[in-house]
Amino acid sequence: MGHVDPRPIGVFDSGVGGLTVLRALRARFPSEPMVYLGDTARVPYGTKSAEVVTRYSLRNAAFLVAQDVKLLVVACNTASSVALPALRASLGIPVLGVIEPGARAAARASRSGTVGVIGTPGTIASGAYQRALASERPGLRLHVEACPLFVPLAEEGWVQGDVPRLVAHAYLGPMRQAGIDTLVLGCTHYPLLREVLAEELGPDVTLVDSAEATADEVGQLLDRGVVGRAVAGPGALRVVVTDLPDRMPELSARFLGERLERAEHVDIEAG
Amino acid sequence: MGHVDPRPIGVFDSGVGGLTVLRALRARFPSEPMVYLGDTARVPYGTKSAEVVTRYSLRNAAFLVAQDVKLLVVACNTASSVALPALRASLGIPVLGVIEPGARAAARASRSGTVGVIGTPGTIASGAYQRALASERPGLRLHVEACPLFVPLAEEGWVQGDVPRLVAHAYLGPMRQAGIDTLVLGCTHYPLLREVLAEELGPDVTLVDSAEATADEVGQLLDRGVVGRAVAGPGALRVVVTDLPDRMPELSARFLGERLERAEHVDIEAG
Repeated sequence: MGHVDPRPIGVFDSGVGGLTVLRALRARFPSEPMVYLGDTARVPYGTKSAEVVTRYSLRNAAFLVAQDVKLLVVACNTASSVALPALRASLGIPVLGVIEPGARAAARASRSGTVGVIGTPGTIASGAYQRALASERPGLRLHVEACPLFVPLAEEGWVQGDVPRLVAHAYLGPMRQAGIDTLVLGCTHYPLLREVLAEELGPDVTLVDSAEATADEVGQLLDRGVVGRAVAGPGALRVVVTDLPDRMPELSARFLGERLERAEHVDIEAG
Repeated sequence: MGHVDPRPIGVFDSGVGGLTVLRALRARFPSEPMVYLGDTARVPYGTKSAEVVTRYSLRNAAFLVAQDVKLLVVACNTASSVALPALRASLGIPVLGVIEPGARAAARASRSGTVGVIGTPGTIASGAYQRALASERPGLRLHVEACPLFVPLAEEGWVQGDVPRLVAHAYLGPMRQAGIDTLVLGCTHYPLLREVLAEELGPDVTLVDSAEATADEVGQLLDRGVVGRAVAGPGALRVVVTDLPDRMPELSARFLGERLERAEHVDIEAG
């Protein structure tokens, strides 16, 4: 069952999208204290280069390590796809991204062996999901698509109606034609568009949410004692952002499912 | 007619949108050398706080001043709306934003006295256009709308068809009903959506492009000798970005109207 470790789990993301991962972790591990850092001063990462995303990720991780976290969850798909090697090389704690858990869940879920992956331009260009899926289940047929408009649609709350429907049709039409039976939602924002995506793809396509798959793997690390568990009692939550905590009530309600009246603000640039 | 000053005009923007301003300046002043800095490592500014945008703007300006520019044009509406006082206080050269020229042009253009302004959430929330228009022409009736989806639509090339049309209808429908006869395009990306906007508003509404208005005011500074003119001969152009010069050929073709095969890359964060 592992040892007791009262230190928090650290989670970072480029902005507020990772709150969907935090939500899955909080639902599964209510006793664990957690610290979330959203780099809202530099959001989005998905359209930026691997070099820049790695630099920002190392700085986010350094902030969380300074909060004495016992495990680092990289909630951002773009950061997970390019920065994990650098993070693992430089940190003395376990580091878990969202790509490998999502790829493993999709490889298990597909019956036909034809899988789709959608993500930001940065995630898709990195090839990280493609490599993880090929390694989990050689011979899978993959269809990938960068969907840059889904993030602003989700952030602005355009998750129903003709606009997201037409955009989803443009992005997903070809992979639906190709006969995928499983789609990896390779960006933390995409679960908010789940209804529109399901409508476009039909009831026979399984949608894999990396947030849920990542929570599963955190559970395995706790079960195996790789990371100690906190003692019982509701785990404290700290949410820290690098810019504009004013929008947090609205965005946290949408992404976290709890309305946070305020978030802490830190400037990590000089750190 | 003013003195000769061979130094370049400096232009900065949060990313590539300001290339529409650079385009207007190049068309009007082909002899002037120009240096453009796009802060693509931190784009967009429009959804970030005034404090963060001011910090980024001061750093961009410092880079351009180090290139010995004779005039600073802030091509980004968001930066123009919040950072001009800080820039003017700290720089020893003339600084021109895009808000005041756009507001002046709109105040002159409107016959009915009912004017619309669209921009990013940061620009609209700053109230900068509202103040500038009220000061240019007291008694104007204003209708403002933040249009956060227009930037990603323009950057991704979704500038025609049902999606931008439906989004434009949602954003502009109320101000069309209110009877505006002039609309300020208060974001450098919006000229790319000009056709869709014109279609939504009809032929009787004048669209004011701040890029053109800003080029007019640069011309006045040169005519009045506030800033010296370069000698004849094609002015050299340098385009510098803080991230991802790989996408420059495509984006420069779309925003600048010339395909730049490569841009210089600088990391100004430590500077």
